[in-house]
Amino acid sequence: MEPIIELLNQTKEWFDPSLEGIFDDSNKDFITAKASMYSLCSGGKRVRPCFMYVVGRMLNCDMDDVLVFARSLEMIHTYSLIHDDLPCMDNDDLRRGKPTCHKVYGDNFATLAGDCLLNRAAELVLKLVMKKPQYAYAAYKMFQCSGIDGMLGGQDLDLSSAGHKISSEVLHELHTRKTGALLECAICTPVYLLDGDSSTEILRVLTNLSKNIGLAFQIKDDILDLTADEETLGKTAGKDLRDDKPTYATVFGVERAKLMLEAELDSAYANLDSIDYYGFDSKELRLIVDYVANRDR
Amino acid sequence: MEPIIELLNQTKEWFDPSLEGIFDDSNKDFITAKASMYSLCSGGKRVRPCFMYVVGRMLNCDMDDVLVFARSLEMIHTYSLIHDDLPCMDNDDLRRGKPTCHKVYGDNFATLAGDCLLNRAAELVLKLVMKKPQYAYAAYKMFQCSGIDGMLGGQDLDLSSAGHKISSEVLHELHTRKTGALLECAICTPVYLLDGDSSTEILRVLTNLSKNIGLAFQIKDDILDLTADEETLGKTAGKDLRDDKPTYATVFGVERAKLMLEAELDSAYANLDSIDYYGFDSKELRLIVDYVANRDR
Repeated sequence: MEPIIELLNQTKEWFDPSLEGIFDDSNKDFITAKASMYSLCSGGKRVRPCFMYVVGRMLNCDMDDVLVFARSLEMIHTYSLIHDDLPCMDNDDLRRGKPTCHKVYGDNFATLAGDCLLNRAAELVLKLVMKKPQYAYAAYKMFQCSGIDGMLGGQDLDLSSAGHKISSEVLHELHTRKTGALLECAICTPVYLLDGDSSTEILRVLTNLSKNIGLAFQIKDDILDLTADEETLGKTAGKDLRDDKPTYATVFGVERAKLMLEAELDSAYANLDSIDYYGFDSKELRLIVDYVANRDR
Repeated sequence: MEPIIELLNQTKEWFDPSLEGIFDDSNKDFITAKASMYSLCSGGKRVRPCFMYVVGRMLNCDMDDVLVFARSLEMIHTYSLIHDDLPCMDNDDLRRGKPTCHKVYGDNFATLAGDCLLNRAAELVLKLVMKKPQYAYAAYKMFQCSGIDGMLGGQDLDLSSAGHKISSEVLHELHTRKTGALLECAICTPVYLLDGDSSTEILRVLTNLSKNIGLAFQIKDDILDLTADEETLGKTAGKDLRDDKPTYATVFGVERAKLMLEAELDSAYANLDSIDYYGFDSKELRLIVDYVANRDR
């Protein structure tokens, strides 16, 4: 088995059972709760939990506490997908090959399910903060990453720029926020759990690494959409171009996008070396970067 | 001026300027932020902030801290209205005589604005909890009240029961959750800020009082809809009956609903007496109960 697949499977074994406890006997029969669980358990790769799992173990964190944050972050990610798929947003009927939340439960309950997941994410971390007040900073940073200064700001830029030509700066800002903010949260949260603040050297390296990985992944995605054949890609190729969607490959051209990808990957490997230099084992993070560098679909 | 109007005006003087600080220069120009502020500043009566203001002063709380919670709670209330008004939910074009958020900013940005307000409410209270960890319980209770165990559960019941006959138990559960939970939060939060837990006698009395006020207000509303003439009511009378909406007046009949209203008001006044007995001044809370008892529109 590919090492990255093994790592993702290991994450699922650690992470997925924790989803059972999100609703209890007093509320699990509400349609809203069922719709929430439907989307949470619809075959996500658990990329964000995987980052938290890897960094949490690398830093020797209390993994039960990391799990609470990983669960809340995945709930936030899932709520954003549910609302993004709504007819008034991207209007997607399928996600990961399954009907989207609103196709199964209706637009009204899908709206409530998204709200419920965001709200419950706050409940779950606050319950932990009550016991361990030193985690208040990590909890705050998580909601900062998912809010207007992070993910929601990126979604706003995405909606605002639909059908317009956008500058490379806006494109960059859009991706840094829309997907980058939650990845950064996943990678940096374990540091906050250890220190209760943001003053360490390792935090700086991990923050930079998270930006490298997020951007490299997106640029690669955009290049593949333009250059891969459909059989390799496993989905419709050239879709971005036909949709007139600004991407790294369409805004900068494939050649320049490839150079940008190389630069992000070089920087990622340099940051991995720094992690080793600071005395931590970057082995599993390296697997992730290797995967982003080598994937062809 | 009527004393209740004076109290609401006083609340607004205390509360409304704090809304300025919700977004800052780095994010206030996002359409999502503008849509959020549009709904936050669209003429709400500030009922929940008023409850927090009254109880906070009665208990001699730090009113700056109460203000943070009042603002977050009003943001949560506002997000629920924005999403409730969406075409896929209640499909309302007007609220308080002004176009609803999605009529002005579109369904997509209204969805994001609701998400943004809920998320930002979490950010604001967590920022305070970082400085004052003893407030973690109050913050947790707030999101419990707005989640599936409170308001969202009530919205779920409301959607689930549309077009069905519902039992008096479900009707009661629906209102206790849908509007009661945030009122309870408004009245009880100042107690949590003082004590950091929920063990006091005054909390029991205030919790009961909040239920009395919430139910009395709703029952009165339902009775007025059936019995008041349109000129007095200032809106279309008999709407609930025509919409086949289950209300206290339609499910129990007007006479029995009037008896239930009396019972809630009697209990409210008894709880006000208890507050005085415990050495606090219930004067302003009494104004609110008097208003609910005597209003004819």
